[in-house]
Amino acid sequence: MERINDECGVMGVFGGPEVTRRVVMGLYSLQHRGQESVGVATTNGDTIRVIKRMGLVTELNREEKEIESMTGTASIGHVRYSTTGNSNINNAQPMVVSTKRGPLAVAHNGNIVNAPEIRRRMEEEGSIFQSTSDTEVILHLIARSQKPNLMDAIKDTLTQLTGSFCLVFLTRTEIYVARDGFGIRPLCLGRLDKTWVVASETCALDLLGASYVRDIKPGELCRIDDNGLDSIQFTSKPHRAHCVFEFVYFARPDSRIFEESCDKIRRKIGKSLAKEHPVTADVVISVPDSSNTAAIGYAQEAGIPFDIGLLRNHYVGRTFIDPSQNVREQKVKLKFNTITGVLKNKRVVLVDDSIVRGTTLKFLTKMLRDGGAKEVHIRISSPPVVNPCFYGMDFPSKTELIASNLTKEETRKLLGADSLEYLSAKNLLGTAPGGAENYCAACFTGKYPEDIPEGSTKFRCD
Amino acid sequence: MERINDECGVMGVFGGPEVTRRVVMGLYSLQHRGQESVGVATTNGDTIRVIKRMGLVTELNREEKEIESMTGTASIGHVRYSTTGNSNINNAQPMVVSTKRGPLAVAHNGNIVNAPEIRRRMEEEGSIFQSTSDTEVILHLIARSQKPNLMDAIKDTLTQLTGSFCLVFLTRTEIYVARDGFGIRPLCLGRLDKTWVVASETCALDLLGASYVRDIKPGELCRIDDNGLDSIQFTSKPHRAHCVFEFVYFARPDSRIFEESCDKIRRKIGKSLAKEHPVTADVVISVPDSSNTAAIGYAQEAGIPFDIGLLRNHYVGRTFIDPSQNVREQKVKLKFNTITGVLKNKRVVLVDDSIVRGTTLKFLTKMLRDGGAKEVHIRISSPPVVNPCFYGMDFPSKTELIASNLTKEETRKLLGADSLEYLSAKNLLGTAPGGAENYCAACFTGKYPEDIPEGSTKFRCD
Amino acid sequence: MERINDECGVMGVFGGPEVTRRVVMGLYSLQHRGQESVGVATTNGDTIRVIKRMGLVTELNREEKEIESMTGTASIGHVRYSTTGNSNINNAQPMVVSTKRGPLAVAHNGNIVNAPEIRRRMEEEGSIFQSTSDTEVILHLIARSQKPNLMDAIKDTLTQLTGSFCLVFLTRTEIYVARDGFGIRPLCLGRLDKTWVVASETCALDLLGASYVRDIKPGELCRIDDNGLDSIQFTSKPHRAHCVFEFVYFARPDSRIFEESCDKIRRKIGKSLAKEHPVTADVVISVPDSSNTAAIGYAQEAGIPFDIGLLRNHYVGRTFIDPSQNVREQKVKLKFNTITGVLKNKRVVLVDDSIVRGTTLKFLTKMLRDGGAKEVHIRISSPPVVNPCFYGMDFPSKTELIASNLTKEETRKLLGADSLEYLSAKNLLGTAPGGAENYCAACFTGKYPEDIPEGSTKFRCD
Amino acid sequence: MERINDECGVMGVFGGPEVTRRVVMGLYSLQHRGQESVGVATTNGDTIRVIKRMGLVTELNREEKEIESMTGTASIGHVRYSTTGNSNINNAQPMVVSTKRGPLAVAHNGNIVNAPEIRRRMEEEGSIFQSTSDTEVILHLIARSQKPNLMDAIKDTLTQLTGSFCLVFLTRTEIYVARDGFGIRPLCLGRLDKTWVVASETCALDLLGASYVRDIKPGELCRIDDNGLDSIQFTSKPHRAHCVFEFVYFARPDSRIFEESCDKIRRKIGKSLAKEHPVTADVVISVPDSSNTAAIGYAQEAGIPFDIGLLRNHYVGRTFIDPSQNVREQKVKLKFNTITGVLKNKRVVLVDDSIVRGTTLKFLTKMLRDGGAKEVHIRISSPPVVNPCFYGMDFPSKTELIASNLTKEETRKLLGADSLEYLSAKNLLGTAPGGAENYCAACFTGKYPEDIPEGSTKFRCD
Repeated sequence: MERINDECGVMGVFGGPEVTRRVVMGLYSLQHRGQESVGVATTNGDTIRVIKRMGLVTELNREEKEIESMTGTASIGHVRYSTTGNSNINNAQPMVVSTKRGPLAVAHNGNIVNAPEIRRRMEEEGSIFQSTSDTEVILHLIARSQKPNLMDAIKDTLTQLTGSFCLVFLTRTEIYVARDGFGIRPLCLGRLDKTWVVASETCALDLLGASYVRDIKPGELCRIDDNGLDSIQFTSKPHRAHCVFEFVYFARPDSRIFEESCDKIRRKIGKSLAKEHPVTADVVISVPDSSNTAAIGYAQEAGIPFDIGLLRNHYVGRTFIDPSQNVREQKVKLKFNTITGVLKNKRVVLVDDSIVRGTTLKFLTKMLRDGGAKEVHIRISSPPVVNPCFYGMDFPSKTELIASNLTKEETRKLLGADSLEYLSAKNLLGTAPGGAENYCAACFTGKYPEDIPEGSTKFRCD
Repeated sequence: MERINDECGVMGVFGGPEVTRRVVMGLYSLQHRGQESVGVATTNGDTIRVIKRMGLVTELNREEKEIESMTGTASIGHVRYSTTGNSNINNAQPMVVSTKRGPLAVAHNGNIVNAPEIRRRMEEEGSIFQSTSDTEVILHLIARSQKPNLMDAIKDTLTQLTGSFCLVFLTRTEIYVARDGFGIRPLCLGRLDKTWVVASETCALDLLGASYVRDIKPGELCRIDDNGLDSIQFTSKPHRAHCVFEFVYFARPDSRIFEESCDKIRRKIGKSLAKEHPVTADVVISVPDSSNTAAIGYAQEAGIPFDIGLLRNHYVGRTFIDPSQNVREQKVKLKFNTITGVLKNKRVVLVDDSIVRGTTLKFLTKMLRDGGAKEVHIRISSPPVVNPCFYGMDFPSKTELIASNLTKEETRKLLGADSLEYLSAKNLLGTAPGGAENYCAACFTGKYPEDIPEGSTKFRCD
Repeated sequence: MERINDECGVMGVFGGPEVTRRVVMGLYSLQHRGQESVGVATTNGDTIRVIKRMGLVTELNREEKEIESMTGTASIGHVRYSTTGNSNINNAQPMVVSTKRGPLAVAHNGNIVNAPEIRRRMEEEGSIFQSTSDTEVILHLIARSQKPNLMDAIKDTLTQLTGSFCLVFLTRTEIYVARDGFGIRPLCLGRLDKTWVVASETCALDLLGASYVRDIKPGELCRIDDNGLDSIQFTSKPHRAHCVFEFVYFARPDSRIFEESCDKIRRKIGKSLAKEHPVTADVVISVPDSSNTAAIGYAQEAGIPFDIGLLRNHYVGRTFIDPSQNVREQKVKLKFNTITGVLKNKRVVLVDDSIVRGTTLKFLTKMLRDGGAKEVHIRISSPPVVNPCFYGMDFPSKTELIASNLTKEETRKLLGADSLEYLSAKNLLGTAPGGAENYCAACFTGKYPEDIPEGSTKFRCD
Repeated sequence: MERINDECGVMGVFGGPEVTRRVVMGLYSLQHRGQESVGVATTNGDTIRVIKRMGLVTELNREEKEIESMTGTASIGHVRYSTTGNSNINNAQPMVVSTKRGPLAVAHNGNIVNAPEIRRRMEEEGSIFQSTSDTEVILHLIARSQKPNLMDAIKDTLTQLTGSFCLVFLTRTEIYVARDGFGIRPLCLGRLDKTWVVASETCALDLLGASYVRDIKPGELCRIDDNGLDSIQFTSKPHRAHCVFEFVYFARPDSRIFEESCDKIRRKIGKSLAKEHPVTADVVISVPDSSNTAAIGYAQEAGIPFDIGLLRNHYVGRTFIDPSQNVREQKVKLKFNTITGVLKNKRVVLVDDSIVRGTTLKFLTKMLRDGGAKEVHIRISSPPVVNPCFYGMDFPSKTELIASNLTKEETRKLLGADSLEYLSAKNLLGTAPGGAENYCAACFTGKYPEDIPEGSTKFRCD
């Protein structure tokens, strides 16, 4: 799948040297979760300073002097996903506000399903909002809470929220970390000497040389301060609802999420796909880089050689502008080229992780044929996406989702493939550790872990 | 006086073509009131879009495409003053928020004296603040007001405020304009065909070709919408308290403020200074450009020729950086040079509008002597500044105010002048139209128009 | 006159501390001679480093780190004038090349009349050119010279050039300075402790605290190195031909050029104008700032009070963009506003230094009338410009020169003035020190100091 | 190998629509050959316009308006490699000069061995040089040539050059293309309808949808104009000397260079490596992405599964700055992470294409062990680099080349590997199509295709 539907990534570092720089470094490894904006907020025990930039972590890192001057005792960071509209610095995070309890910053990954409703109520009661982000709602609730201390105020707030959230808060002297009761998005805890590290994925721990301690539990709220880590369970759900799409596509394969190696599960998914939908072929190739692992798994199970038949040009960023006709096709050609020697007169299995609009895949199939492929068999390592996600994944609308509009056979024809098969939801969930009941696969199945109130809008991930 | 202590400027345009461009144009003529940041917000009847930039109006005007795309029915704008610390885009205006009554934008010139107190109270009640600006307090109050309509809500809010404020609000379909009961800062209303124009100074009306209608009255709140202009008096003070410093230094001489030509009064001030502190001399020169008018007045009254003895380099902006020792002296030399032919063997009267730190004046006096002046007589067209301003003028602290630390004779010596005289408060106020009781001259006299609560901090102008 | 036709400015500093910074500082005071690009080249005895930027000196000064790192023993600098077309970094100076004698940098003010011809010849002989600047021709000639040393090679080159040139060369260990035989443009020599300073105008010496030693003589070539200053006369003309326009408009009034105070002569010009073209009036005003001195002279001679009737907004730079109809009028209004109190019911003398296209003056006259002026009498402190300049002044073409197309009476009508008078060439030259025969006034009179070959194009100033 | 030693890439498009845009597009696919600067020059039949930027092709593409306005009939482009020092816009290409024959632009990939000598001679004769690039020498020679037409002048020039060059020239109406007699660097010709395309690698043809016609022959000079393509052989060498490193590392695997698929040869190289240096292991992994193909070849030959054990973070660009101690290690960790599941308790073969300094490989080996690898066997798909390249490859100096300082066993120890083996030069050349004698492998063997004069310096690639 083209990486156009990313999410957000969060980081937190408490204690030790160079907290700001460490957060920025860690954000580099979470960059795949958001390329639109980046920010870091640091406390020096007295005040919280924040710096945000549109674009990649590199943009932030360019502000060498400012980053260096942001010395302190704890720091949090955020990368925000990329989308076409409504992208501006006002929605960048961390968001920092002044409250009766002092300054409070927050970085959020997820989507608060009932945020519009709460916001409407709060506006009625006289609150003002300065962004379009659901995160601002959380800060309002905390500030308003009558609870005697911040821990309780946050707890009080979290119990009012539905939806997905991985939250890292920063005060003058503490970091608070929370994860929704279903554990929809990943969030892990690490340790490096006396330093606590919190991150969306373990690859950030690896980069900093921190060791993985454990996941933040679904429904857990932690406070980290000079006295160490304190934890409470603010809610308890009958089951988990990890986003299975994190295994399929979102997370980096070198990350450990939902207490399991992403690479291992993604490989299993590829194998399961090979079992469910075998095909007689000469070579298995992937749409690089997101489908590499699944393709290797497919190849191993099928006993067909894996090879690199499509080459990706990593120099082509999001900034390419071409006002001429064939924009999309041109963009695909800019990003990918074929290795003719691998394809020539071959029966090719092309493994991709998902189909959203199908546009890229259509052009890739054409390129494979132009490159000499005798047959092209598309194998998708997830079921057709037919339902909206309310938990942070920015799928396009139904009218754009190919699987909502075409049958599998129609899709195959459109893509120009010899065959097209999807991994079934049952088999996908069969690979997930801990059992199908602990995952959310609503985008495939329509079964959401909780009721989605009528009229809930898909808020942007913030 | 070096233009380091500026204030803010506000603009509003309702109706007619190109509202955004007209606001930006108008801001050019208010640039002397603020060089730190600039912004414009425009409604198209449905949504309010805003664009802000750090720096001069030019920075905004550079965003040609965006400005052009901001078509609409009404627009407001703001320039913010320049100061060393705490200058960032978060404090730039107009500030735009979402409220129960829809989007609301505001541009503010002045300083709310009781903002810290209100803010503290609101934070206690659970509000959050995202800037350090007192303007945010106003928006909170309006949003919270239980009044049935926005006019009443704004009125309700304004009556809770002490201090100075010229406010221009923008909603989807209306502009609201308000001025504090003392009329501390100037604010005028103009008309151009069917278009209403509101601006801090009339020079903005001139630039747009709008005719001056009248000043917004002290304590007046206007609503401008498709039905025209509606006005109420939300408060009534026993007298006015126009800032006399606007006549001395702030306002542009070509502006009409407090219902009188600034040039005329500034010239009178110069004449009054000549009457109070005559001196036998050969030439009268000014510190260009802010003291030109007063110097001409002095020369006319004294019957001594006015001439240009100091030349100002307008290419030297605020960005000059010199890490070496004599920074200040170098800066003065970069900005000013002497015309030897005018000074050589002459007894020179140097007219300046005020002394704050005295550093510039010290170097200028030295330059005049180096340029051949036989005598240098400094005449200041205002009394010594010895008290803080709580109404938007960012004087340095007492320890930096030269008049708080040195006697007049000590100051004269430090400056290296042959004589030094200040215009007395009595005579300064004697030039002000409408009588001394209608002006605030607290920075000179210590008499504030209302009680300043213990512990009031000088908030930044916003 | 609107400052749209500027020239270039050159600087050189040999010896002493911070040579690069001193050149940059000096360029600030020469900024009025060129706003398009700026550059500085510095030798550390071994290599020559150069940095150039489009725009004002501020742009260069922004590169704090790089400027600081350019330590060395000698440095030269350049500001280039502003024009609409063909403005790019390739034409910025100093130009630095590698030659058989080592690296050579040059900064040039003036225009080589026979450059196109030499260039054509050299191209025929196999040379390549990388810019459109006549300066490159000079470097080619020097590099090709067979003379045994650089002094002779430069001398050899200079004798082949016709036109105007003030040149400052930099080698690893020396600065060379040269001025054409007519002394068309100003160039002076200063001293500050052991440091030699060369600059287009003395205001740069003042800024650096250097004392004025003398002008570089027409036809003089100096070498400055560790052994001091060595000078030869490479050519000798029967008379000088200083550009009289430098007195009228180009040079800063605080500069001493052609061995006389510019302010003094400009004032004399104003007085001469008053004698030649008196008028009964109430007030004399200038088009600020370039005509201030002449206006004061006029007022003094005529016994009419000088006042400030037009105010200039110095915040309006060259970057203003307005795609709408009345661009020019709008631009004039952005830059100028009237002081009504000075104009109301007054007979006004408006002094300007020259008329090129007349557009600005037309709008200003209208503004004065709108401001209440009863009569507007335009007095121009120079004769009508009717001939091209081949020595570095970028006048528009004949079709755009108002005086080439309209009679004085037609011009007056177009401007909307009650009367219009120009200072005669005879009287203008009568004010010039040293006698009329030592000046070039060809733009007014058509008498050029030397034959201008058929087909000579007006090269840009470089 | 870390991509720090890249070369340049050249493009040319003659005829058809949107020549400038097509060149820019094509440059995207040559980006791997140079990331320091990028430029494009276009003729409209009359004048040649050029635009250059530091950085990636994206920087150029950002100048949307300018690119669009550069309409014309032919265009050439260039990407320049990345290096630490001496990188500035002056050395960016295409270089454009004015000559007796009109404007001439050139883009060059390669290195002229005798450029310093020719330059010295030309400087002696009076020429000036404005860059440090050897390309400027070529332009001088052409401009000076007495030959009656440009074709002959270029031919005349080329016969004087030794070293490697792929040149694309642009005049008002023609493109000239030339390649050195040894054919050291690749250069191909393509066709798209009536449009001629020239490019360093065929992947640029693929991107534009052009079909591959043939390679430009070693010693061939072509002129492309409205009459079609005209070709002469300006020199004839007894054999070819293609750079074998292009197969090993430089060229993109999807390119066809030296008349053979790069992917095919690179895979053969991997297989040959497996035959020469087999090892008992569980998994073969590559240093992504440059060694992927060779690693797959190794795996196929060895019958050991290929897998992805190292993950590369493509968001980490060249801009990363970290002033702290462990810069290099940190940089490696930012770029790579391990997939533990692939490595755990495995005997790992790590295939890399070459070792230059060895620093990256040392950290990678450590990371593999930290990731659980039981054994790490390094296999390098080329021999040790022990000699300088005079043909455009920017190897570090001998003191930095690990193979010049350490024995293989010492290197193995330093890297921390269980075994280390290099492919022998004999076997490497055995894979090259057309026989060993047609290749230059001097960096491994010291046998240069022609005499390298004493004192030849490694010029930068231009």
